[in-house]
Amino acid sequence: MDYRGIFEDAVDTLRAEKRYRVFADLERVAGQFPRAIYRDDADNMRDITIWCSNDYLGMGQHAKVIGAMQDTASKLGVGSGGTRNISGTNRPLVELERSLADLHRKEAALVFTSGFVSNEAAISTIGRLLPDGIIFSDQLNHASMIQGVRQSGMQKVIFRHNDVAHLRDLLAATDRKRPKLICFESVYSMDGDVAPIKEICDLAEEFGALTYIDEVHAVGMYGERGGGIAEREGLMDRIDIIEGTLAKGFGTMGGYITANRAIVDAVRSYAPEFIFTTSLPPALCAAARASIEHLKGSSHERMMHQRQARLTKAILADAGLPVMETETHIVPLIVGDARAVKAASDMLLDKHNIYIQPINYPTVPKGTERLRITPTPLHTDEMIFALRHALVSVWTSLELPREPADAKITASKLTSGDLTLPTIGG
Amino acid sequence: MDYRGIFEDAVDTLRAEKRYRVFADLERVAGQFPRAIYRDDADNMRDITIWCSNDYLGMGQHAKVIGAMQDTASKLGVGSGGTRNISGTNRPLVELERSLADLHRKEAALVFTSGFVSNEAAISTIGRLLPDGIIFSDQLNHASMIQGVRQSGMQKVIFRHNDVAHLRDLLAATDRKRPKLICFESVYSMDGDVAPIKEICDLAEEFGALTYIDEVHAVGMYGERGGGIAEREGLMDRIDIIEGTLAKGFGTMGGYITANRAIVDAVRSYAPEFIFTTSLPPALCAAARASIEHLKGSSHERMMHQRQARLTKAILADAGLPVMETETHIVPLIVGDARAVKAASDMLLDKHNIYIQPINYPTVPKGTERLRITPTPLHTDEMIFALRHALVSVWTSLELPREPADAKITASKLTSGDLTLPTIGG
Ligand SMILES: Cc1ncc(COP(=O)(O)O)c(C=O)c1O
Ligand SMILES: Cc1ncc(COP(=O)(O)O)c(C=O)c1O
Repeated sequence: MDYRGIFEDAVDTLRAEKRYRVFADLERVAGQFPRAIYRDDADNMRDITIWCSNDYLGMGQHAKVIGAMQDTASKLGVGSGGTRNISGTNRPLVELERSLADLHRKEAALVFTSGFVSNEAAISTIGRLLPDGIIFSDQLNHASMIQGVRQSGMQKVIFRHNDVAHLRDLLAATDRKRPKLICFESVYSMDGDVAPIKEICDLAEEFGALTYIDEVHAVGMYGERGGGIAEREGLMDRIDIIEGTLAKGFGTMGGYITANRAIVDAVRSYAPEFIFTTSLPPALCAAARASIEHLKGSSHERMMHQRQARLTKAILADAGLPVMETETHIVPLIVGDARAVKAASDMLLDKHNIYIQPINYPTVPKGTERLRITPTPLHTDEMIFALRHALVSVWTSLELPREPADAKITASKLTSGDLTLPTIGG
Repeated sequence: MDYRGIFEDAVDTLRAEKRYRVFADLERVAGQFPRAIYRDDADNMRDITIWCSNDYLGMGQHAKVIGAMQDTASKLGVGSGGTRNISGTNRPLVELERSLADLHRKEAALVFTSGFVSNEAAISTIGRLLPDGIIFSDQLNHASMIQGVRQSGMQKVIFRHNDVAHLRDLLAATDRKRPKLICFESVYSMDGDVAPIKEICDLAEEFGALTYIDEVHAVGMYGERGGGIAEREGLMDRIDIIEGTLAKGFGTMGGYITANRAIVDAVRSYAPEFIFTTSLPPALCAAARASIEHLKGSSHERMMHQRQARLTKAILADAGLPVMETETHIVPLIVGDARAVKAASDMLLDKHNIYIQPINYPTVPKGTERLRITPTPLHTDEMIFALRHALVSVWTSLELPREPADAKITASKLTSGDLTLPTIGG
């Protein structure tokens, strides 16, 4: 049996479809984000600017967060020592869970090793505990939610992306007596659009469904204390389970759910992905908590984040680049072809020292391949202008399409107030 | 719909079966492991000795490992910044993968967020890529492997635990032309027994099967450089996929596989659990690598580990306690009843300041509930004698069974050489 050949063929398929992924080898430099050192195949190093990080607020390099990790490592060591049940529940983890429950104003929180694992574990476990239950899942839900839905063994119904009327029809067609779980995200990370949370909660109430929201791309970044879009809209108490990540906005690693005590206790007690794995290191928990607590009290990063995102969209759109209109911090430039988006990404890196990873299928649908730009509060106005220059040059060289995928955003849509906040710098 | 009631009922079932888990809230103290601070429900704190940690060698508190985490956090920050593909591949992670491939003498390695995720992702992905494949899975495989097998969608055949004759029958009964994957562990963590690796490899060769071994409870601890049982037996090159954890023996967090380049590239390219999640923080990667590299060059921890494990078994057996005979570092004391094992654990903590978590179903079969003791190189001889004293007292108070679950190990079975290695100290 030629096993090696089977695996090589599987990978060759990806190569033929131009979606074989080569990971850029980076070295972040604390205090200089979004600048980093890039190392090419020949081991040459050079300075680049990262424009596609999900360390959205640069918190991974915040002095308080680094300090908390170092301090806790020196006091408690590096690893947790075991699974949660077998010696792996440590003080910083208990405090982190309290901080998260408080963030979302819920009775309890539960931390997992990642946001991916939190979705898989929570959705599948909740699903399994609801006899004869049915899950209503947004069509564009993340791979981790899909995995949870699949493993729940529940009947699954997909509603069209953010389509409340469709969801209503599906709910109305379902036996009232069956337990129901509606799973969706607040910010969809590839298009940067936002779910109609209030309308979904209204439907959940009307039809007696539980609500599960993934706020992975919103926590830390929206709401008065960084509780996400649901906090901003005053809807946290209407959502049964709020899921988030400690990576991305909070800049560290790990995932969590918050909910009432009964739900958290059930997931804690039944989810194999939670029970049978070593818990998060104390030093990482302390770092995450420092980040969360800082962002509860400081809106500066959020304001600057929104300002730089708006500025980036306006400036790129003004230059005739196909910016997709979004209401969030995510700035997609649709290219629509795997080969072209790879060529654009390579040219940005090679000629302009700008790193934006191409986004391909299966992360986005075929035909919508894109550059996904994520401005942070630490991208300066100068960097934004340099980005515009580089993109225009690449678009011209490669003769890429300039039609925006959606209505164009122009600088004139922004009030001048939006653009006059001070820059955090470096 | 009374959702809250449904979840509360689910948890009440566990309470009724006396297997509701209450996590002990610990604070590890770097440099003092296995001593730690325990905090009870009333927030009273006291010093205890941990006897059930999976930080088997105490590497989570090793100065080099702590130093690597601190140093990298100060230079690169805390988080990785993204998924592997989207800005999350950083230098320390690339170096960690090289270090792991070298450890197991394989062409390549791939790091995941945990050992649980590495099993789930690798087994399910390899399975899905083998058309019409069939998985042969040891009956006692870990939950994470079972999850991987289930998600692979492959036909699954369970062979009796470590039973080579049974495995042979099952292989012989299978169409020779179907792709086959044999999944097993080297050290089974609850009974501490070891798989017949050579015999399984012989069968794999005879019947043309791939072999997948979980060395989670062996890496760092066995073999000349810490490559696990397969290294000790000179069998690493006969295993196709070696999986391990960066927690446990290496004292940090994360999981990995090592294999030939084709297999690693296929898993890297197809596993959602790998693709759609934020990568391990650089500081954690650096800490893990420091631990691995230290243990490649130092056998002192391994020798002391074996010495303290043997001494513990001998001393407890000598005191008439029901020590299960094992050939590894794991020392199970079978109690056989959920209520009794919980009472024993509580009394050890309350009266003797010794923390050993009860192990219940589903981690072990009902009727084999146990105290699972894990001596480390940092447990002193004095601690072992204190443990013996405490256990004898608890066994007497609670009138627990003294019949060993298996043939008894006595001090006389040990050569004096086994017991005369120097103590590392606490
Ligand atoms: C919507 C969504 N949910 C969950 C995750 C997983 O979170 P984590 O990176 O913490 O595993 C991601 C991306 O990584 C995501 O985009
Ligand atoms: C045999 C086995 N495999 C895998 C794992 C998971 O490893 P990790 O703790 O790194 O998730 C464990 C325990 O945690 C285990 O016992």
